[in-house]
Amino acid sequence: MSKFDVLTIGNAIVDILSRCDDRFLEENGIIKGAMNLIDAERAEKLYALMGPAHEASGGSAGNTAAGVASFGAKAAYFGKVAEDELGKIFSHDIRAQGVHYQTAPDGKFPPTARSMIFVTPDGERSMNTFLGACVDLGPEHVEPEVVAQSKVTYFEGYLWDPPRAKEAIRECARIAHENGREVSMTLSDSFCVGRYRDEFLDLMRSGTVDIVFANRDEALSLYETEDFDLALASLSADCKLAAVTLSEEGAVIVKGDERIKIEAIAVDRVLDTTGAGDLFASGFLVGYTAGKSLEDCGKLGCLAAGIVIQHFGPRPMVSLEEAGREAGLI
Amino acid sequence: MSKFDVLTIGNAIVDILSRCDDRFLEENGIIKGAMNLIDAERAEKLYALMGPAHEASGGSAGNTAAGVASFGAKAAYFGKVAEDELGKIFSHDIRAQGVHYQTAPDGKFPPTARSMIFVTPDGERSMNTFLGACVDLGPEHVEPEVVAQSKVTYFEGYLWDPPRAKEAIRECARIAHENGREVSMTLSDSFCVGRYRDEFLDLMRSGTVDIVFANRDEALSLYETEDFDLALASLSADCKLAAVTLSEEGAVIVKGDERIKIEAIAVDRVLDTTGAGDLFASGFLVGYTAGKSLEDCGKLGCLAAGIVIQHFGPRPMVSLEEAGREAGLI
Repeated sequence: MSKFDVLTIGNAIVDILSRCDDRFLEENGIIKGAMNLIDAERAEKLYALMGPAHEASGGSAGNTAAGVASFGAKAAYFGKVAEDELGKIFSHDIRAQGVHYQTAPDGKFPPTARSMIFVTPDGERSMNTFLGACVDLGPEHVEPEVVAQSKVTYFEGYLWDPPRAKEAIRECARIAHENGREVSMTLSDSFCVGRYRDEFLDLMRSGTVDIVFANRDEALSLYETEDFDLALASLSADCKLAAVTLSEEGAVIVKGDERIKIEAIAVDRVLDTTGAGDLFASGFLVGYTAGKSLEDCGKLGCLAAGIVIQHFGPRPMVSLEEAGREAGLI
Repeated sequence: MSKFDVLTIGNAIVDILSRCDDRFLEENGIIKGAMNLIDAERAEKLYALMGPAHEASGGSAGNTAAGVASFGAKAAYFGKVAEDELGKIFSHDIRAQGVHYQTAPDGKFPPTARSMIFVTPDGERSMNTFLGACVDLGPEHVEPEVVAQSKVTYFEGYLWDPPRAKEAIRECARIAHENGREVSMTLSDSFCVGRYRDEFLDLMRSGTVDIVFANRDEALSLYETEDFDLALASLSADCKLAAVTLSEEGAVIVKGDERIKIEAIAVDRVLDTTGAGDLFASGFLVGYTAGKSLEDCGKLGCLAAGIVIQHFGPRPMVSLEEAGREAGLI
């Protein structure tokens, strides 16, 4: 028996979302579409320049866990907040979604991580993340019985930014595989891939990671190529299964010589792409852990991603389970 | 010269917004559509029962100030937060909107006020407000030169809940009138009217308040009648000018024997009525302080209200100035 379908592990972050125009990004040296890491001083400075904002719990893997739970599947999450108001908000939101979340905060400093997310008129989000309490995540935060009882353990490539999270991940992967489970990761961000390319490839080639999620840019960055077919071929050689998202073109699933193309769902207007990749992963993994065909896994992923980009904020505001049923996918 | 078009004064609150069904309200003793005052203990209990939420700066008069600024007019605000993260969020958002806001927090306790707002499928919002730092607002927070230089000073009836805010209001009204300015209030909530009916009537009849904003229920509650025409006639006797909002039926402006009916704007779907009355007041007062006809004031109010109910959250997410221009009203 599995107690959980999907365990996700990531930087526990509260998002601070606001709109801006492209010029604002340029003037302030924010790389568009990327996750820009910032320190406390730059966080203060950027916040002073930011327009009126909305706050919502985020964090890539946190969004994925929330998506899994919204589909009615069983989710767990490891991630570190501080004992402060944003930490309470993060903890509340993920638990209120039905996700098992017990990572203990241990003090007020550093404070709970926050990401200032600037959304341009095209719907693209550019993130500026102050990691705060996330830098303390380590192997002591692993709940071994949760890993052992989760069908898939999924983590963010972003976890290579804080110093000791990777130790937690290696420990989780060991426990998962010892218990016959699978391990999955998202490459997170093409710049993140640039920072940790060799380590990510090693995770895949050593069999530490079985299933890889990426978008087109991340896949190209991983293999330092402009040839997308080559990147897909390399992914298929380096891991058992990969799902590569292609924005409005949907996604492609890669398994050995198989390439399964999934269409994006029809979307009236892309309001905010925050959480799109995270929610794709949630839908895919919900299908995967329920034994669906890879095509249906991909469709569930595209459904969840298509829903989250139609509102402001990184997590679903409607029941993905209902949406999945209406689409005939669950 | 006036430095400000509108000064607003109110409880400085961060909203915590989530959806629920009507049964949840009944089961938890929340009066639908009302502002339910709660203590810290009930706040903890309700938060534990609340689903995943979004946070956004709110507070009735704070929303009005944000609306005034979004219209491109000059706004100021008095309201009390604490030195904590929610206080920072509130202060940031209102200043980032361009509102003059300098009320100094003085410590961490009581913490910044928050209102848990449950939005039912019909779009109606039911608020549960823990007043926190708002209980400390008093005459020492009045900035006399701001009052003197504001064309209209506007405050919430809700300010009769904390103990000393009414002293601040009486001081502001005195300064405003000494400087030839006008004073306006919103009746806030029909239950609030029930708590302070005699004092509100006295504010109007003593000439402390010149312009009154209300919705239909509040107007009926003020005069303890079911006869709406009688309520309007009483309003016209008790104040110089009143604007009464009527939800999907728009609003009616009352001045002496005049009754000016304003139609609501067409709205595809009411997502969340939070802030509707506050934004009506912002549009009306922007028109009023710019010397527009009462009809155009009402149209600007209905425009702003119609915009804010189409998204989740209490403040405009688009430029009201642009919307007003597109509608040919400014």
